Amino acid sequence: MRHRRAASVAAVWIGRDLQLEPRRRGFHLITSEVVEAIPELSQLAVGLLHLQIQHTSASLTLNENASPDVRADFESWFNRAVPEDAPYWRHTLEGPDDMPAHVKASLLDPSLTLAVRDGRLALGTWQGIYLCEHRDRGGSRSLVLTLAGA
Amino acid sequence: MRHRRAASVAAVWIGRDLQLEPRRRGFHLITSEVVEAIPELSQLAVGLLHLQIQHTSASLTLNENASPDVRADFESWFNRAVPEDAPYWRHTLEGPDDMPAHVKASLLDPSLTLAVRDGRLALGTWQGIYLCEHRDRGGSRSLVLTLAGA
Amino acid sequence: MRHRRAASVAAVWIGRDLQLEPRRRGFHLITSEVVEAIPELSQLAVGLLHLQIQHTSASLTLNENASPDVRADFESWFNRAVPEDAPYWRHTLEGPDDMPAHVKASLLDPSLTLAVRDGRLALGTWQGIYLCEHRDRGGSRSLVLTLAGA
Repeated sequence: MRHRRAASVAAVWIGRDLQLEPRRRGFHLITSEVVEAIPELSQLAVGLLHLQIQHTSASLTLNENASPDVRADFESWFNRAVPEDAPYWRHTLEGPDDMPAHVKASLLDPSLTLAVRDGRLALGTWQGIYLCEHRDRGGSRSLVLTLAGA
Repeated sequence: MRHRRAASVAAVWIGRDLQLEPRRRGFHLITSEVVEAIPELSQLAVGLLHLQIQHTSASLTLNENASPDVRADFESWFNRAVPEDAPYWRHTLEGPDDMPAHVKASLLDPSLTLAVRDGRLALGTWQGIYLCEHRDRGGSRSLVLTLAGA
Repeated sequence: MRHRRAASVAAVWIGRDLQLEPRRRGFHLITSEVVEAIPELSQLAVGLLHLQIQHTSASLTLNENASPDVRADFESWFNRAVPEDAPYWRHTLEGPDDMPAHVKASLLDPSLTLAVRDGRLALGTWQGIYLCEHRDRGGSRSLVLTLAGA
């Protein structure tokens, strides 16, 4: 077990907004876009990066960063687990993909908090940040990034 | 992409407890209760608000803040996805709603971290904080709020 | 509603790594291992502890800390909800337990943020930290711990 202790005198709090271009329904790697949007990452020895998507029909998660098949399989599983044609949906006025998108978004979460070490995200070798677009035409998505640390 | 940089000299850490009144099983909007419980929000330019529910059969999430049908549909989906009468449940001594409540609570999460900007929660237009009550009679629920920022 | 205000002058950021020994597939309590790995917890009046698992086929959650049946029931539910033999999986080259493990990991989340109060995790009476091992042979798992507060 290693440890690093940061000085207690230089806590930094930085906020950034990131506007993502529209993407098709499915799961998309956005790690490099996120890192580029907050270059102050490189100044922190120890910290946290918090990402929040300001929508209720898209979400964020961390998963396998190599195989496109993994991301396609996520879409397949979620479409079966939260079906569009379920007879119990009441909120149907925004289209058949809307209410399932809300449920998927809460299953996967609208926010993600990641450790920062030595100027970089402390991701495992295979971890990447996913934008999970649950709508057929979700449009541009707004993210709020908060970086804190020392 | 806009950004705001907070001064590094005035990091604030504030803890609050919030006791929620008993609510019926289902999904309930609690955004205004949370905001009122931590008035120091208004002093922060950039920060995070962390909410943790101190129970294992209720949870917190962020979702659509307008339509009661959306919240009813959440209840419908979760009841079908995590059935009370599944033959494989072993932990049945606290009633048929107990073990499904534990699973639902972990699917949705016991905690929620939200961005703070310019003295307010940086929620999207349609985002509201849900208390997800998974028990038939869950009683009062305790939340721990932690506000940090600059 | 009680509150505690921490002085704004002594924000602390501490990073630790925690290597967990291999565990069998299933849900395991690791609260005491986590607390022992970050003894600086005891110095904070108000803070947050962030845990991140650096893998995409294991996850972290907070749930019932007493009954082994609850943890067995979690395994039962997740195995039925995310079946190994689903015909739609494309990513099958790493074994039948691999792709379901990725989906389970994102449903439960790779990270967990917990409140700290008066030198301790502010857990409810029945809350414990679970390592969720979704692979048959997941091996040792790496956690990154970040403690911040005042």
